[in-house]
Amino acid sequence: MTHSLYNASIPVFRQMLGSVKDILTKTEAHATARKIEPEALLQARLFPDMFPLARQVLIACDFAKGVAARLAGVEVPTLPDAQRPGFAELHERIGQVLAFVEGLPAASFAAAATRQITLQPGTPREKQFVGEHYLLHYGLPQFFFHVNATYAIARHNGVELGKSDYMGRY
Amino acid sequence: MTHSLYNASIPVFRQMLGSVKDILTKTEAHATARKIEPEALLQARLFPDMFPLARQVLIACDFAKGVAARLAGVEVPTLPDAQRPGFAELHERIGQVLAFVEGLPAASFAAAATRQITLQPGTPREKQFVGEHYLLHYGLPQFFFHVNATYAIARHNGVELGKSDYMGRY
Repeated sequence: MTHSLYNASIPVFRQMLGSVKDILTKTEAHATARKIEPEALLQARLFPDMFPLARQVLIACDFAKGVAARLAGVEVPTLPDAQRPGFAELHERIGQVLAFVEGLPAASFAAAATRQITLQPGTPREKQFVGEHYLLHYGLPQFFFHVNATYAIARHNGVELGKSDYMGRY
Repeated sequence: MTHSLYNASIPVFRQMLGSVKDILTKTEAHATARKIEPEALLQARLFPDMFPLARQVLIACDFAKGVAARLAGVEVPTLPDAQRPGFAELHERIGQVLAFVEGLPAASFAAAATRQITLQPGTPREKQFVGEHYLLHYGLPQFFFHVNATYAIARHNGVELGKSDYMGRY
């Protein structure tokens, strides 16, 4: 079980980011079929002060790359966000993040469970974690939040999705 | 790391079911303050063919107890569902499930990672899993789906919640 935090993170990100890709594909197809402007779905929100669908996808990607990098002990890669990403940009972003997380060697997670992780260092919101706690109680809940928000916004807007689209390939 | 699947399940269920309790408390307070019928929130849905809020809570509870029991190798406890549970019944159910999962000894998860788990045995939908895969790729994604759906329905209906309510105590 040396690499158990690898197993608990990278293949989970792969599964769920794959689902987000499929949800985006169905959302775009829905927009095309119903002659809905893509922005009407990409900028849809469940409530005015929640982030819209496109931003939920970007944040899910941010958590996947940030959590994976911190556990592996490497620099978090910076990927600049487009102001109003379209479906193509979102697919591209997911592809970049999948390539990054899948490129991390499992061996780099050998010390992940006990690695000290500091979020927002030097700020009043600084938080200290140990690797295992960081993944299980912070990283995964945050990641799942934005994956689910993506699904919920699309579903609420009439895209024909079921839970199997969310679950993806497991 | 003998008990790593214990760590990856029971404390996560504790954290997130605690969040669901807090979300329910705020949802009930919102109903009271705005003179909204409790049923109007408990039976609210994001889309007509999705489950309403109360049912999302029950299903999150079902996954917590089912996943925990299967990993620990014990019988899944049966808890009959009320037809239209109110806030009090939902709090009671979460309490029952928390008591069950917290009562499972960590040692009973020693063989969990490699335990053979069969869902819907003897049916056309039978699925075979090994314990670690079952938790990471099926149990946790399912559990998070219903916790998030609970949050999303309450949030969409104007309950004043933020992500910190969802994240709970970590």
